[in-house]
Amino acid sequence: MTSHTEQSAVTVLGLGPMGRALTGAFLDAGMRTTVWNRTPGKDRELVERGAVGARSPEAAVAASRLTVVCVVNYDAVDAIVRRGAVTDALKGRTVVNLTADTPDRARDTEAWAAEQGIGYLDGAIMTPTTTIGTPAAVFLHSGPEELYRQHRLALDALGGTHTHLGEEIGRAAAYDIALLDIFWTAMAGYAHALAVARAEGVSARELAPFAKGIGAILPPIFEQSAEEVDSGSFSGEGNPITSAVSSMAHIVHTSEAHGIDAGVMRAAEGLARRAIGRGHGTDGFLRITEILNPR
Amino acid sequence: MTSHTEQSAVTVLGLGPMGRALTGAFLDAGMRTTVWNRTPGKDRELVERGAVGARSPEAAVAASRLTVVCVVNYDAVDAIVRRGAVTDALKGRTVVNLTADTPDRARDTEAWAAEQGIGYLDGAIMTPTTTIGTPAAVFLHSGPEELYRQHRLALDALGGTHTHLGEEIGRAAAYDIALLDIFWTAMAGYAHALAVARAEGVSARELAPFAKGIGAILPPIFEQSAEEVDSGSFSGEGNPITSAVSSMAHIVHTSEAHGIDAGVMRAAEGLARRAIGRGHGTDGFLRITEILNPR
Ligand SMILES: NC(=O)c1ccc[n+]([C@@H]2O[C@H](COP(=O)([O-])OP(=O)(O)OC[C@H]3O[C@@H](n4cnc5c(N)ncnc54)[C@H](OP(=O)(O)O)[C@@H]3O)[C@@H](O)[C@H]2O)c1
Ligand SMILES: NC(=O)c1ccc[n+]([C@@H]2O[C@H](COP(=O)([O-])OP(=O)(O)OC[C@H]3O[C@@H](n4cnc5c(N)ncnc54)[C@H](OP(=O)(O)O)[C@@H]3O)[C@@H](O)[C@H]2O)c1
Repeated sequence: MTSHTEQSAVTVLGLGPMGRALTGAFLDAGMRTTVWNRTPGKDRELVERGAVGARSPEAAVAASRLTVVCVVNYDAVDAIVRRGAVTDALKGRTVVNLTADTPDRARDTEAWAAEQGIGYLDGAIMTPTTTIGTPAAVFLHSGPEELYRQHRLALDALGGTHTHLGEEIGRAAAYDIALLDIFWTAMAGYAHALAVARAEGVSARELAPFAKGIGAILPPIFEQSAEEVDSGSFSGEGNPITSAVSSMAHIVHTSEAHGIDAGVMRAAEGLARRAIGRGHGTDGFLRITEILNPR
Repeated sequence: MTSHTEQSAVTVLGLGPMGRALTGAFLDAGMRTTVWNRTPGKDRELVERGAVGARSPEAAVAASRLTVVCVVNYDAVDAIVRRGAVTDALKGRTVVNLTADTPDRARDTEAWAAEQGIGYLDGAIMTPTTTIGTPAAVFLHSGPEELYRQHRLALDALGGTHTHLGEEIGRAAAYDIALLDIFWTAMAGYAHALAVARAEGVSARELAPFAKGIGAILPPIFEQSAEEVDSGSFSGEGNPITSAVSSMAHIVHTSEAHGIDAGVMRAAEGLARRAIGRGHGTDGFLRITEILNPR
């Protein structure tokens, strides 16, 4: 593997916290790494570590057969790569886009790349910058299997686990969106819980061991309920949606009695009440997936 | 311990799934257990196992020094215990109320109990019926320490861990509300993620291993962020709230482009945008606790 990666060259466009972490991992793997960032100066430390700082994005992409782009969103990607000189320099080469955005934007970018004769893979990074180059990193990829195989060794230099989700280019973004949905919604719940707890005189530190305990029951529930959600059977045995709604009403009441916005929980409660209204009161809470997205 | 619990007697009011589980654990611990439920017939199996079925709630509470009540909510508790004959029979005895409701209702019930000369402890059960009588059960309690100590052995018969959170009677309910807030909000996020994933052609089973992975990063985040939330410092280093908002916008866009209600995420995004609007864009997402509940 070392001999392969030593021979390989890669270009990184975008030197935000994540772009810098990716570059660091490529350098650590002994790859010849060319970098460029819109705002100059962000490459200093990386150049000291051996990266080649390019003067322009077209010069950067011309230096390697593989370009990894990781900027804030696809508007930023477009602002960099959908310009004559850069597009021309990319022809016949491959772009792996590790920027987060929507599946739609990934599809649009693939169509553009195909027109231009540019190889295109879309990816998503599911873990923080500190995991890059370590076994804890999680990368999702989609796009042509063959192209993925060609660049697999270079991607492996980033550490962690890489999963190719399929040829449909929007897949990585779809998984990314769904997983971030879980993450940020849960974080919103945690923030709200802390606000209500504080109003009741309970500190975050006091709540922490119990919050941790509640958090720990989520992964097995996510895993165990997948089958019933796919099959459309939602057993409410022992925990019907009516019981969830009763808890939700208590949460909304306590929150608002303290003057605390309960909009997130009100929205969730509304979905649960609609499921009950449609006759699913004895089902489990995940019946709301059918309210959100009728088959 | 066995000799203590064998000598003890307890009454259980309410034989829903949880009341039945509690009764089962008391019976397994060898306690003389008297039961009553509004709708007759729910005690059959328990009576076969050795429980004493009372004909009326007043007869039930008269049979033991300790009454555990576990019904749907405090309206139901009031409907049972705030009636002349039952209130009279409870005087000089102790009620442990393991029904879920708001801290306000716990305070109101304590005031009523004090007026009537009834000992009162409030509690919350944080785990499902299947955990009762096992080490996995989690019980929270609040109210007079002395009363808690007197009944500690009987409560221990329910298995699991019991934490006395303090004398302020609303504490158990406050923790319960906060923990259920985390749980149900996260579940709403999971349900929404599954709906969006399905619209993108990704099944719950395909998403499951990754959903599990995202779920697993929550408990350490809950634990590690407690200190910064208490101190009001919210480092956004590596993950500023502006970045969270960008993800949230992608989620809302993808959801609504599929015709899927994004109300929960819209509400969360609104809080994050308000935090940014107040000048906290470089802070971490948990800054929204301050938007929800200004100090
Ligand atoms: N940070 C993490 O922990 C993490 C984890 C998983 C995924 N991600 C994803 O990784 C990507 C990059 O994230 P990040 O943490 O590095 O920071 P970021 O703030 O999301 O992105 C910063 C980068 O975007 C560039 N940029 C912004 N607008 C631009 C434009 N119009 N034209 C050209 N470049 C533009 C910035 O260049 P300037 O320096 O010139 O502003 C900088 O290189 C994002 O999609 C993010 O969602 C990040
Ligand atoms: N199930 C769980 O996994 C779980 C976990 C943690 C906490 N809890 C909490 O435990 C409590 C009991 O839950 P549960 O699962 O047993 O089922 P539940 O459906 O919440 O409560 C059913 C019980 O409430 C009684 N009830 C309802 N309205 C009444 C009224 N007006 N007067 C008298 N009794 C009335 C029912 O009597 P009838 O039979 O006559 O209707 C039955 O005994 C709830 O507060 C729940 O939040 C449950």
